[in-house]
Amino acid sequence: VHESSLSADAVERGEYAHYMLKEIYEQPRALADTLSERLLGDHVLEAVLGPAAGRILPLVQNVHIVACGTSFHAGLVARYYLEQGARIPCSVEVASEYRYRDPVVTPGTLFLAISQSGETADTLAALREARRLGYVGTCAICNVAESSLVREADMALMTRAGPEVGVASTKAFTTQLAALGMLGLAIAQRRGFDRRTIALYARQMAQVPTLVEHTLKLDPQIRQWATRFADKQHALFLGRGPSYPVALEGALKLKEISYIHAEAYPAGELKHGPLALVDAEMPVIAVAPNNALLEKLKSNLQEVRARGGQLFVFADPNAGIEPADGIDVMTMPDHIEALQAPLVYTVPLQLLAYHVAVLRGTDVDQPRNLAKSVTVE
Amino acid sequence: VHESSLSADAVERGEYAHYMLKEIYEQPRALADTLSERLLGDHVLEAVLGPAAGRILPLVQNVHIVACGTSFHAGLVARYYLEQGARIPCSVEVASEYRYRDPVVTPGTLFLAISQSGETADTLAALREARRLGYVGTCAICNVAESSLVREADMALMTRAGPEVGVASTKAFTTQLAALGMLGLAIAQRRGFDRRTIALYARQMAQVPTLVEHTLKLDPQIRQWATRFADKQHALFLGRGPSYPVALEGALKLKEISYIHAEAYPAGELKHGPLALVDAEMPVIAVAPNNALLEKLKSNLQEVRARGGQLFVFADPNAGIEPADGIDVMTMPDHIEALQAPLVYTVPLQLLAYHVAVLRGTDVDQPRNLAKSVTVE
Repeated sequence: VHESSLSADAVERGEYAHYMLKEIYEQPRALADTLSERLLGDHVLEAVLGPAAGRILPLVQNVHIVACGTSFHAGLVARYYLEQGARIPCSVEVASEYRYRDPVVTPGTLFLAISQSGETADTLAALREARRLGYVGTCAICNVAESSLVREADMALMTRAGPEVGVASTKAFTTQLAALGMLGLAIAQRRGFDRRTIALYARQMAQVPTLVEHTLKLDPQIRQWATRFADKQHALFLGRGPSYPVALEGALKLKEISYIHAEAYPAGELKHGPLALVDAEMPVIAVAPNNALLEKLKSNLQEVRARGGQLFVFADPNAGIEPADGIDVMTMPDHIEALQAPLVYTVPLQLLAYHVAVLRGTDVDQPRNLAKSVTVE
Repeated sequence: VHESSLSADAVERGEYAHYMLKEIYEQPRALADTLSERLLGDHVLEAVLGPAAGRILPLVQNVHIVACGTSFHAGLVARYYLEQGARIPCSVEVASEYRYRDPVVTPGTLFLAISQSGETADTLAALREARRLGYVGTCAICNVAESSLVREADMALMTRAGPEVGVASTKAFTTQLAALGMLGLAIAQRRGFDRRTIALYARQMAQVPTLVEHTLKLDPQIRQWATRFADKQHALFLGRGPSYPVALEGALKLKEISYIHAEAYPAGELKHGPLALVDAEMPVIAVAPNNALLEKLKSNLQEVRARGGQLFVFADPNAGIEPADGIDVMTMPDHIEALQAPLVYTVPLQLLAYHVAVLRGTDVDQPRNLAKSVTVE
């Protein structure tokens, strides 16, 4: 295992009570660094994937994404960037499942591994397994340049989150999304998407650091909300489409550092079982950007409300979701595009988990039972 | 919506306290009926898929499975039958997500929809969407012959579970697995698998009704275990590979009828977050058949035990998992094969959920907030 050599400065908490809070606030900078000199005005510089990109990218007809934990959630968002955005079939799988499944590889498939440390044992083993299986190439999304994953993959796109100390990943996740968005653009470029579409996506991605900075201003309001969760034992997170992995990530943060049993569901699955859990003791958090799925989500939220569930909704200003008895609404920045929403809507969920954990008095940066990098199986 | 015409007899509870218990006990018969005259001594009768099978099956290079709730879990098991067994790439998705995702279809893909009622709104809408998308054909796995799903799909394989009254699905799920196993065999036959392998799988599937009957004899022991769950608010279900969907289904049953917040994880993901939840108040249920993943699972269980978690393990007699302080072991029938395990290991989880719900005094057959068939979105 190789460790990055960090300057003392880089890992100081400074004015922040915890590394996690510092790392949440570093996201505008980390995102800007990750996009810098790679996302140009109207396209992505394909060469940032490394010298093999010119050979491999033209062959890619399919993508398999493999990762663990938070990186797996990044992969689930990437599926939308790749399949809905770049029109290339994509599947996403937990590394510990993938590596023992004896998968069948469709010709023309790229293997994509995501890991903050680049030393996650199952992800690294999955990459090694994949190298035997006839993929057209392998690619790593990683935060540590000297890691095994980066050394062993054909291509790599580095996140520039800087060192992440908090065990619960924050800036590593959002910079992974930025890197995956760029990878989606690089593939779309190779597939001959028209230049105006590419340029539009590039501009939208370039706005993300600023949008995240605006979103951080919700912090005082989120701290208020946190008081309502501090005595809870359960929480349900709902999203649809690309907001479902955002809900998964929000639930995982709350689990990891507050020890509240939080679970995420794609909202359309509610009626197929989890609705039985909903009562006044089960707060329900919903991720509601203004997209094509909004009306469907609103009907799911009505079901929750009808069963006495307390709703906390992170909503677009034009979502038409009004605060009411049992419905709290946090108004997110206006005009968030589909490409941007997963990055922007993740931030308040990180802050919510952080403040709830602080109120519950847990060890935020070093939660019980967990290690920063899972380098053993 | 078409309703089946049921005889009064067929839906009587008889000696059973609840329909759900009756339906759990009907599984050996329902499975035998589902396999009867279709699974012959050494192969599957392809014609049971309908007249279009001869045209469509030779074209199938890929399978997309779409379903909701319990049927989605059946699809996750089927992925192993199709990909690991019949060596054909397979992906599985929740219908409410699939239908709004604008998926890209790889040439040669079969669309497979699973629904007990055949009227599940999202699954039916997904089938209708799929018919526009260039699949080589569509297939329904369904329990109601007159349903919309069966009428609108190119092929259908009917489960013969008989009417299912309990809202929490039991015999519909296991008969879906039997049907999916037969579909996997039909595809393997078409792909020219050698006759001895096909015959071996056919014999293993034919033994399932008897194995399920033996497993039902664990009922008194499971009722004992249930007393240990009745006052709990949480539970974690763990499995790996094809046992992960079994764990998901076990958690869903407990959720649906006992209102305990049960959640399933692929055991390899434990260290990536959920282990933070584990303490003496969080019982952990593990599904441990004797397969290649057993040693990995045992190491995951040690992590749980080291954190004070109480383990309840459904284990193969040769798994080498011994009862100890904090570890309860339920010994399952011997020599369960990989193909059989998902069906056999589901049964004790159904019984556990049932007895816990009875002890908690919930309305077992009509749990709060849920309907039998979700025929609206």
